[in-house]
Amino acid sequence: MNVTTNDLWSAIRAIREKAPVVHNITNYVVMNSTANALLALGASPVMAHAEEEVEEMVGIASALVINIGTLSPTWVRAMFRAAEAARAKKIPIVLDPVGAGATSYRTKTARELIRAVPPEIIRGNASEIMAILDAGARTKGVDSAASSDSAVAIGRELHTECGAAICISGETDYVIGKTGVVKVRNGHIMMTRVTGLGCTATALCGAFAAVNPDPAAAAAEAMAVMGIAGEIGAARSEGPGSLQLHFLDALYRLSADDIDRYLKIE
Amino acid sequence: MNVTTNDLWSAIRAIREKAPVVHNITNYVVMNSTANALLALGASPVMAHAEEEVEEMVGIASALVINIGTLSPTWVRAMFRAAEAARAKKIPIVLDPVGAGATSYRTKTARELIRAVPPEIIRGNASEIMAILDAGARTKGVDSAASSDSAVAIGRELHTECGAAICISGETDYVIGKTGVVKVRNGHIMMTRVTGLGCTATALCGAFAAVNPDPAAAAAEAMAVMGIAGEIGAARSEGPGSLQLHFLDALYRLSADDIDRYLKIE
Amino acid sequence: MNVTTNDLWSAIRAIREKAPVVHNITNYVVMNSTANALLALGASPVMAHAEEEVEEMVGIASALVINIGTLSPTWVRAMFRAAEAARAKKIPIVLDPVGAGATSYRTKTARELIRAVPPEIIRGNASEIMAILDAGARTKGVDSAASSDSAVAIGRELHTECGAAICISGETDYVIGKTGVVKVRNGHIMMTRVTGLGCTATALCGAFAAVNPDPAAAAAEAMAVMGIAGEIGAARSEGPGSLQLHFLDALYRLSADDIDRYLKIE
Repeated sequence: MNVTTNDLWSAIRAIREKAPVVHNITNYVVMNSTANALLALGASPVMAHAEEEVEEMVGIASALVINIGTLSPTWVRAMFRAAEAARAKKIPIVLDPVGAGATSYRTKTARELIRAVPPEIIRGNASEIMAILDAGARTKGVDSAASSDSAVAIGRELHTECGAAICISGETDYVIGKTGVVKVRNGHIMMTRVTGLGCTATALCGAFAAVNPDPAAAAAEAMAVMGIAGEIGAARSEGPGSLQLHFLDALYRLSADDIDRYLKIE
Repeated sequence: MNVTTNDLWSAIRAIREKAPVVHNITNYVVMNSTANALLALGASPVMAHAEEEVEEMVGIASALVINIGTLSPTWVRAMFRAAEAARAKKIPIVLDPVGAGATSYRTKTARELIRAVPPEIIRGNASEIMAILDAGARTKGVDSAASSDSAVAIGRELHTECGAAICISGETDYVIGKTGVVKVRNGHIMMTRVTGLGCTATALCGAFAAVNPDPAAAAAEAMAVMGIAGEIGAARSEGPGSLQLHFLDALYRLSADDIDRYLKIE
Repeated sequence: MNVTTNDLWSAIRAIREKAPVVHNITNYVVMNSTANALLALGASPVMAHAEEEVEEMVGIASALVINIGTLSPTWVRAMFRAAEAARAKKIPIVLDPVGAGATSYRTKTARELIRAVPPEIIRGNASEIMAILDAGARTKGVDSAASSDSAVAIGRELHTECGAAICISGETDYVIGKTGVVKVRNGHIMMTRVTGLGCTATALCGAFAAVNPDPAAAAAEAMAVMGIAGEIGAARSEGPGSLQLHFLDALYRLSADDIDRYLKIE
């Protein structure tokens, strides 16, 4: 698998033209920031979590993003119902197992979702990806206790087991799909000081999956766009506060030229 | 009905002097950004949604804003209880039927609220306003699938039926009240790329309704202030990220002079 | 008690080096902004509220922050369970009684938490602190109806009664501990126009308490850092929108030199 500047630019243009509806069942912390990132990219976010309406909302969506960052039983039930509707409708599901490994409730929920309603893409940090297969993985809350490199082997195993494209974010982002592993080397260290940029990456995976039928390519495109917008934003920022806004501005203004200049993918 | 520069400036000064408490039962996505907009304007926002306390919280409020953007059964029950308390206390109720038409749960909830506890102001985009009366209206998640112009006729009908001032936001904002229709032509296209600015408009309707006994005039004032702050903010912004902050700064700094220069109302 | 530039700088360095996990059960309005403030300071925030996991999450945390800003029965139950786990593990608990006095549900919940699971630090505005002891205290929603000075006497009483360091924020911040009262005179009036900066102060109390065994000193350090970052941020801001980001940038960049120049503590 390979993602070229042209591929990425075509995907961005498709999102801007179609404005695909991305249905998010996500955590309270990032609802605002991920909705803003989806809008800045050109997608049309919708947030809905009530069991009374998630299936119907999936009906107007082109992708479903499930993020377990602040889960509770009613929300988990809605996640399952929405995911079943998404599978029936054959729209892509993206799962963010936030904090898997930090509590058994999160690990268990992530595993059950993967088993019952297999997602097209799973995006997490190294600790989270490892925790899904390995009960003994260490974690530090919602931040990773391991580098992304150390999770590639287990990411491959997880891909083999569940079929999803596995995206492990870190200094280097790895995307493991049917045709192998892609590395994305974009991004900036200051991004780790803005809450929820991992969740934003997951939401953008949803937008790209809505226009690209290859889940691994969609995930790689999302990670590249995240990293490039982060680099452009960080260069103009004095800290994580200003990075938040410059990141969104960069997403909004992203040009073929920016991609050509910044893209580091292999 | 007419809203002059003087009317609008008087209303803003009244909000800044009285700092009216605006009680919001709103969606998770916009709680932070609408609270910040209310504070920047000079009002005092409070968020409370527990059935255990909403009636008491209404007791210290000067307006109640109900927004169904991320509804669920317990929240809907609290909305009804708060609205009944607001009617008993005779403070204005503003309703934002976010996503009406997107799911039947939202359409039904909006209709039931309007019937059982008629609001003074209903603010929505064209799709949402149409969906309240017309089961066949098209929508696209929480974004409108129609222009505001196309919803004016149905907005008049809705006004006749329920008595509320109907505010339809879009490129031109329409406010339909007892004495006719007001058009507000302020605003900037970049505002559609910031999540929840429609919800912010609704929250500001609450602040203006707290100091202005004429609901239609209050809604027109809120839309004008939104649009003017949006234009001032957008002129200084490179994208929707920076627009968020420049919009709040503009709201905070808004002067009689700004209003005089920017107001486009008829 | 006294907090010197050196003490404060050592505490900040300890937070940046250890990145303590601060577990927050907080309100919907501020989850994003408080997580960002903790990250900017150097701590590692985690938000979790499900009864199914709060005890386990406390197990990986170095401090627990409880904020009743948008409470409801299931959340209150989780607060008690988390606080009991925190006491068993002997990590500090910080309580923010948001809106105590505004509704009896909030006042009652704050009192019960203080009685059943005594926190190390209670931080609130004057109205909230007074409402905990005095059923007749006036409040205005979540904003204070009284100056911090007027609450010092009742703050001392509350300290005597429950043993917690009592932090009363306002134009002057007061921290009442075993060895007396500390006054912090940093801060900027524009901070009152940004939602949730009081909640952010509480969250930072958690970060400082995670590295400083003296709760009153930790609270004074948090208030000083809030105020200094607020002053630096406000000097660069044209309104509360830009203050949000400059505040975070200032937290992130805070140097020994800044502290030396700005600290006003006695």
